[in-house]
Amino acid sequence: MNAHPRFSLNQATIKHASLAEAIAVTQGAGIQSIGVWREPVADIGLDVATRLIADSGLRVSSMCRGGFFTALEGPERRAALDDNRRAIEETAALAAAGAVGSAAVLVLVAGGLPHGSRDLAGARERVRDALGALEPFAASAGVTLAVEPLHPMFAADRAVVSTLGQAVDLAVEAGPSVGVVVDTYHVWWDPEVIAQIERAGRLGRIASYQVCDWLTPLPADVLLGRGIPGDGHIDFTPLTHAVDDAGYVGDIECEIFNAEIWSRPFTEVAADVSSAFSRVVAAQLDPVG
Amino acid sequence: MNAHPRFSLNQATIKHASLAEAIAVTQGAGIQSIGVWREPVADIGLDVATRLIADSGLRVSSMCRGGFFTALEGPERRAALDDNRRAIEETAALAAAGAVGSAAVLVLVAGGLPHGSRDLAGARERVRDALGALEPFAASAGVTLAVEPLHPMFAADRAVVSTLGQAVDLAVEAGPSVGVVVDTYHVWWDPEVIAQIERAGRLGRIASYQVCDWLTPLPADVLLGRGIPGDGHIDFTPLTHAVDDAGYVGDIECEIFNAEIWSRPFTEVAADVSSAFSRVVAAQLDPVG
Repeated sequence: MNAHPRFSLNQATIKHASLAEAIAVTQGAGIQSIGVWREPVADIGLDVATRLIADSGLRVSSMCRGGFFTALEGPERRAALDDNRRAIEETAALAAAGAVGSAAVLVLVAGGLPHGSRDLAGARERVRDALGALEPFAASAGVTLAVEPLHPMFAADRAVVSTLGQAVDLAVEAGPSVGVVVDTYHVWWDPEVIAQIERAGRLGRIASYQVCDWLTPLPADVLLGRGIPGDGHIDFTPLTHAVDDAGYVGDIECEIFNAEIWSRPFTEVAADVSSAFSRVVAAQLDPVG
Repeated sequence: MNAHPRFSLNQATIKHASLAEAIAVTQGAGIQSIGVWREPVADIGLDVATRLIADSGLRVSSMCRGGFFTALEGPERRAALDDNRRAIEETAALAAAGAVGSAAVLVLVAGGLPHGSRDLAGARERVRDALGALEPFAASAGVTLAVEPLHPMFAADRAVVSTLGQAVDLAVEAGPSVGVVVDTYHVWWDPEVIAQIERAGRLGRIASYQVCDWLTPLPADVLLGRGIPGDGHIDFTPLTHAVDDAGYVGDIECEIFNAEIWSRPFTEVAADVSSAFSRVVAAQLDPVG
């Protein structure tokens, strides 16, 4: 069966595939779009990666990921900003190589508290400052920086941006080339989520919509507790309607971190996730036009 | 050394102690106040428990816990509301038996999604309705219902009240005998937390302040990842200043769910927690008097 035309397979869902393998799996499943990660691109080099993407006929829906800029002023922070500039250039190149409809969107994970620090407010200020510093560079490269709020359980060690409202505030302050990621796994619990999706849409800031389910009990490594849509506790109907009503018309990625799913054959995972997407998420979208 | 006069030992921190043992440990550590749980009260019966409390000379700072009223209309929901009415009566009796300054405060944990349900908005409406139904009963018993927002990682399976702002909204809608618990572990990550503590104070709704630290990595059972203040990532200074400035003058509980701490001798835990409280939290309070 064919995948939904707006479905995109985020490479992290088949984490152990090379870029060439991920492209082949995506094509084989009839999926039109792929979300690319930097590490498998680095494994083969940007030139080879752009050629593979260009030859594939696939759209690129996003590049994961930049960010991690909460370090205090010093060499570590400067290195992080330099690395984000490289990620912006890579994003521009890959999106240009992708089929029409590709999105030059770089997903940003803010980073956690620096080692030994408890200054959450200070870390959040440094995220704001980094976005302000990177925005002109992204604008001139034609890339949108997409701030991803992560679930509050990651606030200490992974991302001090914890709510969609906070991400929208950061995007608005940084400038027009900064948007947000709406990832159901990270925001589904938020009593304000529907209002903030509406606000993000009104302000033209929804840069990516990612779908993934919340499973219980949480596994020992909470990073790896994500599920295929329909397997967990999230109701995708109100969230998808809100994103749709907010005017988002881009590709929709499934990005699933789950050790069990990573251990299965890539083609099987792609087929299962694509089918779940059609059943659970795409059914909520306005028909393509 | 003496405990800080506003420090209260929540019984859950020495979970395996009986009420008599918990009282003896609290007294032995020079602590003036105790947060009581329903299960150890039920083990000996309410009459014996009130006599133990009255004889102890300790204040009662809160009773844990009621709530768990997200079930759909039917026998389970009616049983939950009946159980909450009993908990309100027990809270009134124990607070009346406690020393001057005891607080007739019943902590409420909302409950998670009913089995097989993904209707988060509906579950939240049932919490609102239950609070509305219980408020007059609590008012006539002289008891304050304290809605505790739990960390969003518990939204599916334990508490659909996920932020302090949401808890304050629920309290305001339910009536004057409903307040909120500010527990650092559950709210520290929230970009809105300081503003919501101020708002809760302005509206006279802070019914309890509980302190406990956020440790990483999270343990396999995330319920048990709580730490003694100072051992984790939370900065208690801005939170404690905000609660203090908001006009909260009641006892401050340490409530720590942690299997390692539960396995240690009660007296050692009480001394360690009391000392950590003096060092990390009490230093931020305006001096008494």
